[in-house]
Amino acid sequence: MTQKKDEILYERAKKVLPGGASRNQVLRQPHPVYAASASGSYLIDVNGKQYIDFSANIGSLIHGHAHPKIIEAAYEQMKKGTAYMVATEIEVEYAEYMINRIKSFEKIRFLNSGTEAVMHLTKVARAFTGRPKIAKCEGAYHGTYDVIEVSQKPNPNTWGDKKRPNSVPHTAGVPKGVLDSVIIVPFNDIENTINILEANKDDLACIIIDPMPHRINMLPASQEYVNTIYDWTRKNGSLFCFDEVITFRVHYSGMQECYKVQPDLTALGKIIGGGFPIGAFGGRDDIMEVLDPICQYYKYPLSGTFSANPISLTAGLTAMKLFEQDAVNNLNALSDKARSLISEAIKIAQVPISMSGEGSIIRLHFADRVPMDYRENYYNELNQKEAIKRFLDYLYDHGIICVNSLTFFLNTTMTDKEINILADTLLDAFKEVKPYIK
Amino acid sequence: MTQKKDEILYERAKKVLPGGASRNQVLRQPHPVYAASASGSYLIDVNGKQYIDFSANIGSLIHGHAHPKIIEAAYEQMKKGTAYMVATEIEVEYAEYMINRIKSFEKIRFLNSGTEAVMHLTKVARAFTGRPKIAKCEGAYHGTYDVIEVSQKPNPNTWGDKKRPNSVPHTAGVPKGVLDSVIIVPFNDIENTINILEANKDDLACIIIDPMPHRINMLPASQEYVNTIYDWTRKNGSLFCFDEVITFRVHYSGMQECYKVQPDLTALGKIIGGGFPIGAFGGRDDIMEVLDPICQYYKYPLSGTFSANPISLTAGLTAMKLFEQDAVNNLNALSDKARSLISEAIKIAQVPISMSGEGSIIRLHFADRVPMDYRENYYNELNQKEAIKRFLDYLYDHGIICVNSLTFFLNTTMTDKEINILADTLLDAFKEVKPYIK
Repeated sequence: MTQKKDEILYERAKKVLPGGASRNQVLRQPHPVYAASASGSYLIDVNGKQYIDFSANIGSLIHGHAHPKIIEAAYEQMKKGTAYMVATEIEVEYAEYMINRIKSFEKIRFLNSGTEAVMHLTKVARAFTGRPKIAKCEGAYHGTYDVIEVSQKPNPNTWGDKKRPNSVPHTAGVPKGVLDSVIIVPFNDIENTINILEANKDDLACIIIDPMPHRINMLPASQEYVNTIYDWTRKNGSLFCFDEVITFRVHYSGMQECYKVQPDLTALGKIIGGGFPIGAFGGRDDIMEVLDPICQYYKYPLSGTFSANPISLTAGLTAMKLFEQDAVNNLNALSDKARSLISEAIKIAQVPISMSGEGSIIRLHFADRVPMDYRENYYNELNQKEAIKRFLDYLYDHGIICVNSLTFFLNTTMTDKEINILADTLLDAFKEVKPYIK
Repeated sequence: MTQKKDEILYERAKKVLPGGASRNQVLRQPHPVYAASASGSYLIDVNGKQYIDFSANIGSLIHGHAHPKIIEAAYEQMKKGTAYMVATEIEVEYAEYMINRIKSFEKIRFLNSGTEAVMHLTKVARAFTGRPKIAKCEGAYHGTYDVIEVSQKPNPNTWGDKKRPNSVPHTAGVPKGVLDSVIIVPFNDIENTINILEANKDDLACIIIDPMPHRINMLPASQEYVNTIYDWTRKNGSLFCFDEVITFRVHYSGMQECYKVQPDLTALGKIIGGGFPIGAFGGRDDIMEVLDPICQYYKYPLSGTFSANPISLTAGLTAMKLFEQDAVNNLNALSDKARSLISEAIKIAQVPISMSGEGSIIRLHFADRVPMDYRENYYNELNQKEAIKRFLDYLYDHGIICVNSLTFFLNTTMTDKEINILADTLLDAFKEVKPYIK
């Protein structure tokens, strides 16, 4: 029997890449899918099989793959250079654009990834306040900086009391001093969050919140939770920070436009690079001054070889100009239509499946209602492991790519056609795995 | 008087970017240079002024700006997509290529920047050994991860005893637990380095060395220093790591080919992205296994939205294939010729200026011999501040861009023409600033 191209590639990959993959996210059994090319919502693998891609590279492609206007803009810039040690007009233009678009932004700094964005936001908060600790929500993912990784995926053996969660290392060998600098709070639990913040109020540089955390079931932070924490930070000299690396796509100015209060600092990434590597953070002028080498409040030297490179910025600004209010509204309307179709499919299949997410993000849960917090979801996913695995396999087999968390990211090149195929395929998948749902 | 374009851009920039710049490195008085376009070794600013660019975006452009073969390869890939959530053939190809090129590499992982590369190398060393501390050299730059940033730029008020340097925070607000996890050793000082390592031997995950650290005067690590530390790590269960983000350009396999011993892990970045954002680290198979989700030694979950994106990898592999042994030899020969011309200019001008660096990296020092260590250089640069400032201004005014440390990175598109212009301009600059050299 002749080996398929992807089988051969994976054999080679296992010899040179740990686990045979450059990113854990791509791993599948018996081997990953290998992309040959992609355009808009469609991806073709090395065997010639076509998929509709609802992963959008983990939400980062708001206009799907290889949008012609983005590619041509990037190509025009590439011919003039991809990176300089001097400044560029595009960094000024894009900064002006974002500050105009996001109410809470007075200044912005561009970096290379969401991980870099959150790391520097965290360090800037510490530099500005002179305080060593940060608070984050149990189970929230904010990139791979070790401080912010703490308690990203704790388990019942490690997580401790729900009202006062432990700071659990995400990787082996994390120094105790790193762990001690991170306070873990329970998402959307006002009383216990405030109790924990109070116990650390003199040491706390910031609390960082993803307003709809991917790993906490794509549940929105409640208005009251956000307001109460914001008020607490005003009284106690901490900064109130958002991670909108994923959620910026949900509304014209990100999820933050849904709340009465504004974050002091916000981290961005993913869609703002137009498909190229990017991160950024921005916010209050007086805080961002710690980055200014000619300011008396300068406390935070920061350069970066590829930061603000003109390719990522040109592609990113082009993508953002193609994703203004009307485009956001259209995409969210299509996404709501997809939600209706999926609800219908759930009813027809009579399966205990629920949905979370907002705007162009849809997440499925193998539970009759969305799990309330990280811990409930942990048990649910463990319980439904077999059904989820079969479900994902069915989708891949039938030409649908989504994120392994069962998250579907829609993009502006999608139409009724793609969401109808999605709903039809989901209905078949629901029926197929129904016997395995516990 | 009409304002020039760069003056207008900087006025706008100051309103939206802290300090008016996206990277501290680009700041100049009264305003940064703004690039309009660049090709090979030449850069044209928004006022139409032409420069020869010896910065190579801090050494990252081994073939100068917008090399046609790299740009066309990247463009071909862009039309097929810039980033997928699935695997690609190019990640396998490039991994195989690097493992073939670098003797110490058995496995490799791609990331988005040198900062990410060093951060994950450090964290992997901790995960593999289960130990919390790392050792680095006083004054060495390894990116902007807070642990590795410690003592990057200490001063006489903070640095403590030379034989046992303090761990000095680089930015404000660094938690004590982070500082305590970093041991600082004096570069090329065998006796004191070993004493310090000995005092921490049970806690030390790794020692990380840049074999020719930019911020320690571009002095190569001595054979004896490297050998002695390597031997010490073999006896004491620590990993021996190199940061070759900058120095990889010096030889076909980086500076490590000059030493008898091989690093366990090495961080890469800059030139391996062909001008696009990249980082990578690689080394021993048994260590890299901690990254493998399907291995029993899995201890380190790591993904990354833009990591191993096919644009950076396509551009990077194209660049590396254009920089094999012959190209390295040619560039280094041209660089040696530049060294001779600069030596000649120093003699003619009768100035107390010395040179360090190796291969395609040339660094000038305003001192009759290269400062021996970080501290000597600190005092020397402080002392020569006025002369250095005038020197840099003269070079920029006369169409030469270099790194502010007075480092010149040559690239493969350079010929006798560019190094002759460099030597002539340096001679004039030497004469110009001679009265200001102390």
